Amino acid sequence: MESFTRTSFGGHVVFGPGTARTELTDEVAALRVSKVLLLTTERAEPLARELTAKLPVADVFTGVREHVPAAVACAALDAATMAHVDCLLSVGGGSSVGTAKAVALSMRVPIVAVPTTYAGSEMTPVWGRTENDTKRTGRSPDVVPRLVIYDPELTVGLPPAITAVSGMNALAHAVRGLAADPLTALVGREAVRVLKAGLPKAVAEQDRVEALYGAYLAASAFAVAGSGPHHKLCHSLGGVYGLPHAPTHAVLLPYTAIGATDGLRKLAERIGAPTSLHAIGMRDEDLADAVDRLPEAADVLVAAYEGKWPA
Amino acid sequence: MESFTRTSFGGHVVFGPGTARTELTDEVAALRVSKVLLLTTERAEPLARELTAKLPVADVFTGVREHVPAAVACAALDAATMAHVDCLLSVGGGSSVGTAKAVALSMRVPIVAVPTTYAGSEMTPVWGRTENDTKRTGRSPDVVPRLVIYDPELTVGLPPAITAVSGMNALAHAVRGLAADPLTALVGREAVRVLKAGLPKAVAEQDRVEALYGAYLAASAFAVAGSGPHHKLCHSLGGVYGLPHAPTHAVLLPYTAIGATDGLRKLAERIGAPTSLHAIGMRDEDLADAVDRLPEAADVLVAAYEGKWPA
Repeated sequence: MESFTRTSFGGHVVFGPGTARTELTDEVAALRVSKVLLLTTERAEPLARELTAKLPVADVFTGVREHVPAAVACAALDAATMAHVDCLLSVGGGSSVGTAKAVALSMRVPIVAVPTTYAGSEMTPVWGRTENDTKRTGRSPDVVPRLVIYDPELTVGLPPAITAVSGMNALAHAVRGLAADPLTALVGREAVRVLKAGLPKAVAEQDRVEALYGAYLAASAFAVAGSGPHHKLCHSLGGVYGLPHAPTHAVLLPYTAIGATDGLRKLAERIGAPTSLHAIGMRDEDLADAVDRLPEAADVLVAAYEGKWPA
Repeated sequence: MESFTRTSFGGHVVFGPGTARTELTDEVAALRVSKVLLLTTERAEPLARELTAKLPVADVFTGVREHVPAAVACAALDAATMAHVDCLLSVGGGSSVGTAKAVALSMRVPIVAVPTTYAGSEMTPVWGRTENDTKRTGRSPDVVPRLVIYDPELTVGLPPAITAVSGMNALAHAVRGLAADPLTALVGREAVRVLKAGLPKAVAEQDRVEALYGAYLAASAFAVAGSGPHHKLCHSLGGVYGLPHAPTHAVLLPYTAIGATDGLRKLAERIGAPTSLHAIGMRDEDLADAVDRLPEAADVLVAAYEGKWPA
């Protein structure tokens, strides 16, 4: 047993099939908020409106974008300010809750998150925004959602390709937890176990309960562990070369994880996650530039660009 | 996987031998507080003064008593108010942090806890106070310590008898966690495992690291799980008949736990914990009265009073 420090974050979680429809209204009422800004994507807007039909929604912001561009964060903050809201409610993946976090960082009002992917941002104090091709990230207890509703039914129908990359992103959170304090490592190990069992079922049979539970565990561990070299590399590549967040994790994780990487690569192949940076949109000239910018990651970048894996 | 809800509490934990001497000053400084009320027992006062020598201690309250009598809570609040403190720092067991919690409930200032036993109150939102022979308990996020320093060196020298009952109290927290949501149950299982291995070592060899780590895990699980029938029974008996808190847990746990109770009884015997209510001060007339008051617990009370255990 080594010495350790551990900073964790509190909150209220509701987990279970159907809970977004049966529990969200009462759970938000219990927070005693009076005006809600709903943040979601255009695609998820009908679902989001249905789930929040009985809540005091003052405005709906559907302009969320991946990596939270500064202009989007400003527009969302403007909507929240003009509507005098005292609660931000996100329905969607990491980009929706990420936009809510960018607003909460200024306004300090509670966030309610209803995740529809395995992105995990709903459990963490990590915020991010992108300006001039550079993603800035930070940590603040003010952006940790007060209430999270995990309803596996909302993830049924998530396309297999998205399920795979979002699941590998969750697995990256779990693996990061392994390197933290012993309690966080315990949760990380359980998250790896549950995700390895659950992700193939989620892709093959739309049996989604275990995968979402694993994503919750993984995000809980990541919230404490914080970013490691893997996550910093993914954020750098995402911001500079416009690579999508979850697929970048999916490709890089088997290369950056310490130990058990064969298993991660095999899982990625089994669930149909992409296995090369080239396949997710990185170009030859991006690779050359990235190797210049990040010489310490050159070996990983060159191998992951082609997606070669030693037999 | 069943549906579940889970409310957890955040905070900063520092764990490791020697950390109370090497980390407390800097960690409290990082909270940016300017006036501290030190709460401790008369016995622990020299240690508490040594550990806090470099902190801005405005006053020292050494009147803490078990079960937090209302008069003690009032006196501590008075001391905190008169000294205009913005931080409460407890050095001691459950009674010291319990008194800090009683003050925080009124003043809403952060608590720093330096535990010297396995009581676990430092991780929970549970407060309690006793008036007219009745203990009232409640939950509030305002009383969860912001910072906890777990230094196993401070528990070296805790007499074997106290170690045993305090350890069984911790084990009761762990067992309670088993009945909660799956993440809390995971932590509870790990806490049971670590305590079963660590408590005998703590008693026999003064090897204290594992026992304190197990107590931390157990308290973390209990913070989420909340009181069950076992804890409610212990608090009832403690308040009405003046029974000591930890020994009451030690005696009752093997009778009230569900499953694996033989193992709990054997552990209690191995580490020298008391095994009957009679042995810890309950009288014949108390038993009769308790059976009248708590008919649903009559069987457990009668068996635990004598301490008989089926072969």
